[in-house]
Amino acid sequence: MKFKSKAHANIALIKYWGKENEELIIPKNNSLSLTLDSLYTETEVAFIDGEKDVFYLDDELQDERHTLKISKFIDLFRKKSNNFSKVLVKSYNHVPTAAGLASSASGFSALAVALNELFELNLNKTELSKYARRGSGSASRSIFGGFVEWKKGYDDETSYAEKVDDANWDVAMIILVLNDSKKEISSREAMKKTIETSPLYKGFTDSSIEDIKNIKEAIKNRDFKKMGEIAEHNAMKMHATMLSSNPSIMYFKPDSIRAIEKIKQLRKDGFDVYYTMDAGPNVKILCRDSQIENIVHELKKDFDSNQIIISKVGNDASVREIK
Amino acid sequence: MKFKSKAHANIALIKYWGKENEELIIPKNNSLSLTLDSLYTETEVAFIDGEKDVFYLDDELQDERHTLKISKFIDLFRKKSNNFSKVLVKSYNHVPTAAGLASSASGFSALAVALNELFELNLNKTELSKYARRGSGSASRSIFGGFVEWKKGYDDETSYAEKVDDANWDVAMIILVLNDSKKEISSREAMKKTIETSPLYKGFTDSSIEDIKNIKEAIKNRDFKKMGEIAEHNAMKMHATMLSSNPSIMYFKPDSIRAIEKIKQLRKDGFDVYYTMDAGPNVKILCRDSQIENIVHELKKDFDSNQIIISKVGNDASVREIK
Repeated sequence: MKFKSKAHANIALIKYWGKENEELIIPKNNSLSLTLDSLYTETEVAFIDGEKDVFYLDDELQDERHTLKISKFIDLFRKKSNNFSKVLVKSYNHVPTAAGLASSASGFSALAVALNELFELNLNKTELSKYARRGSGSASRSIFGGFVEWKKGYDDETSYAEKVDDANWDVAMIILVLNDSKKEISSREAMKKTIETSPLYKGFTDSSIEDIKNIKEAIKNRDFKKMGEIAEHNAMKMHATMLSSNPSIMYFKPDSIRAIEKIKQLRKDGFDVYYTMDAGPNVKILCRDSQIENIVHELKKDFDSNQIIISKVGNDASVREIK
Repeated sequence: MKFKSKAHANIALIKYWGKENEELIIPKNNSLSLTLDSLYTETEVAFIDGEKDVFYLDDELQDERHTLKISKFIDLFRKKSNNFSKVLVKSYNHVPTAAGLASSASGFSALAVALNELFELNLNKTELSKYARRGSGSASRSIFGGFVEWKKGYDDETSYAEKVDDANWDVAMIILVLNDSKKEISSREAMKKTIETSPLYKGFTDSSIEDIKNIKEAIKNRDFKKMGEIAEHNAMKMHATMLSSNPSIMYFKPDSIRAIEKIKQLRKDGFDVYYTMDAGPNVKILCRDSQIENIVHELKKDFDSNQIIISKVGNDASVREIK
């Protein structure tokens, strides 16, 4: 038996930034994301004879350290099914090379839905979201398509994502890839430092309760402007908590600022565009699917074509049996 | 009788960002600055016959709106002395043209010490600091040279600056002038918006109490590294409160980020350099006077010579009678 799954990346509009429980990956606040069609991971799984799991990423055999992380994740499924067989995992990240876009969300989500079939666990999506969460927090959201909320909960059983809306109402995203050669602090490390050293952090988590409530209301009403404004404010609040860490953590690059200025100008020009940023220099533009062609035309005046990734809204993670 | 005064600009290491009382200019928190020798205002004052005050700035007669602000300030001295004569004010800002550096601090400080002589009020420096504050909050600090703390107080009588240290121990500042054609929101407006809309603002004012205590300890011990680290953290906390305003206020320009990256690199290379920023794109470098030549040599690799202003520590505001 061999299964192949597919799960999409997601970009948070209300950010996950900080863990309440490091081991179980219980977050400090609810988050809400949009699942992206263009960026995804495909994962094949099969049982194998042998002493160890084997993990290939983009056809490359992974070393012990990387494989160990996957094995620990598979252990959750082995324990649940009482089947301690070893597994061959072959993952393919369909994310433009060197885009610096996190693939752990789509990766662990794809792995979770594949292992569910392999171990014949018959878990529902809510359960799968909890499992995916244990691999990478934001992976909990990639189980679902559209707009997805990760409810923080308070323990392993209560912390999972659920779909808020299919997002089939003229919503899309453009990613400006602004990679930089310099290696930055990892998001895992950065969120830990933020909680430990930023005196402004509490204001972020406290105010995210209102942000979640308001953005869900905006989504329900298909109020694009309100949704965009809340997302932009929330993203800048997250970066504000990093900036106010000690020492300061800054993911803005000169090109990130240039991109933000461009988006503000496009908004003045009448486009429905709002920016968000994660733990890296890239700038993501929440926009109207119907305006993408014109927006890209404008962006190409200031950025290279290969820096621009466009994406429609992605679906739920899926899995099928293969030969 | 004619008097000529001189007062220097100052750059805050612990920032003033937000008013408790808008009219009296009572701040939300104590601030602490370094007075700069290179940037100053010279102001001549004399009584005149006539219906109105007359205000020249850099030999240019100012319009009604600008003159009204000066007249209201002079009113404080007229009321105190019970002398309601009109005044001729001629101010000269010795700040490199178009540097975008605030001259209101040196301006109102110079005017206060000049008017004190003209109206024969014999006010001491503490009193003059209170008067200067009424013109522009940060002007309260420019009455003094070296490191200066503005104690927020709670009313007109209790909110004034005082000298913390002469700063004659190998301290200096370099200003990177990174002006941008785009007009930004004024600092007065920006701090108001921040208080009204940033859920992270309270963390800034609360933590500034510790910052003031710690930086004064560092200054006392001539601990340059600790002083620089506190200043850098405090500045980024202030910008974090702006960034987290709604809508977000961002004074970073692509060149500001480039400057910050350069300063971090210089620090790795062994220089004692720390950055601070105010409500504009310029980046100020707190550094060692003894290292200035080498730092400027390095900066010239990435910035134009005319973007680099170096300054030693400035003295108290002063005044003399002229013909």
